Amino acid sequence: MRVTTVGLDADDTLWHNETIFRLTHDRFAALMADVAAPEVLELRLAEIERRNLSLYGYGVKGFTLSMIETAMELTGNEAPSRVIAEILAAGREMLAHPVEPLPGVDAALAQLSEGYRLVLITKGDLLHQEQKLAASGLGDLFAAVEIVSEKTADTYARVFERHGTGAAQAAMCGNSMRSDVLPALEAGAWAAHVPYPLTWDHEVADAPAGHGRFAELASISELPGWVRDLG
Amino acid sequence: MRVTTVGLDADDTLWHNETIFRLTHDRFAALMADVAAPEVLELRLAEIERRNLSLYGYGVKGFTLSMIETAMELTGNEAPSRVIAEILAAGREMLAHPVEPLPGVDAALAQLSEGYRLVLITKGDLLHQEQKLAASGLGDLFAAVEIVSEKTADTYARVFERHGTGAAQAAMCGNSMRSDVLPALEAGAWAAHVPYPLTWDHEVADAPAGHGRFAELASISELPGWVRDLG
Repeated sequence: MRVTTVGLDADDTLWHNETIFRLTHDRFAALMADVAAPEVLELRLAEIERRNLSLYGYGVKGFTLSMIETAMELTGNEAPSRVIAEILAAGREMLAHPVEPLPGVDAALAQLSEGYRLVLITKGDLLHQEQKLAASGLGDLFAAVEIVSEKTADTYARVFERHGTGAAQAAMCGNSMRSDVLPALEAGAWAAHVPYPLTWDHEVADAPAGHGRFAELASISELPGWVRDLG
Repeated sequence: MRVTTVGLDADDTLWHNETIFRLTHDRFAALMADVAAPEVLELRLAEIERRNLSLYGYGVKGFTLSMIETAMELTGNEAPSRVIAEILAAGREMLAHPVEPLPGVDAALAQLSEGYRLVLITKGDLLHQEQKLAASGLGDLFAAVEIVSEKTADTYARVFERHGTGAAQAAMCGNSMRSDVLPALEAGAWAAHVPYPLTWDHEVADAPAGHGRFAELASISELPGWVRDLG
């Protein structure tokens, strides 16, 4: 069962994402310093994001709306308009942020693309993810791009069926145990976890210790070797 | 060259969309009545939406952010927080709005699905479009769903290649001359225009009068007959 297809997560696997969200969190905390302690603000924002997830999904626009909502709630609907204007500006800056591949990504993908079909599989805003891929300069290395609203075992089965030769002959690589590794394993694919220093609360899960098709890699630079050794 | 595949636009072709945007426009105008005349508000909002299109794309979340930005601009960054709270609520209600197929859609799609591969091709927020399709009850009639960030000739060529037997054996149906009809014709497909009473400014374009592969239909109920007669 030779591996023919390699799936790659995008945010925090190929380029920084959570870091940019973190910077915006800090900016939001500074803006709201007179209203709420940073821990209180964080908790409230996390709660509101979670509440909005089924309506807003993942991505910067929903995050921006959730920040505005948090500012309103914590001020009893009296958020200073300066705060709202700053939040709008922060959201726009996140969307327009330059995209730079993480260390080792260019080389790993160039090497992999010679022997395997590469498929980008990512959650988030459709337009924004397409823009980030274009800005990253990595677009040409991918045979297909799938921007999905959730990453379940079904998602991986469907994507590897459509763009490859099925999940049993596919390997998935990403920084989220919960979204990239566990459901890909469940679909019957191989899966490698490449950790990112910051991981969003929603994405944390335990490693599938001892799973025969799982690997923990220290860096994406180890990915081509691991995939090759799968045979 | 028998037609094998029928592409269908979603918003305002299968279900109401612009009507819901219009209602929110009216609600926004009422909210801002003390600040700006309705015509001034409309012009400013349209300008801001256009300015944000490349960052926000199409969909309710971007529209909500543009309404907030319009309120801020027209009040010199002094929008009452009640207005912001109401705009957030209006956006959430749009996202949670019930989805009901337009008259004739159920029957036309059921009939078409017996002889052709149906593909939903739509712009907008990924998650929201998936939710609307699920809520419409029409999901099972479609062989494939493509949520795209732009509808160009390339988009149609790619989608009909992937999910059908190429554009030359495909027919596209939608309410937008600019997004559904003209680029589909350019890609080499057949195209039928089914008008919707309200059409967003950005989507208006002239009919391709006299084009051999174009038809103007009064209702989606005429679609199965037209497609069948293509041979």
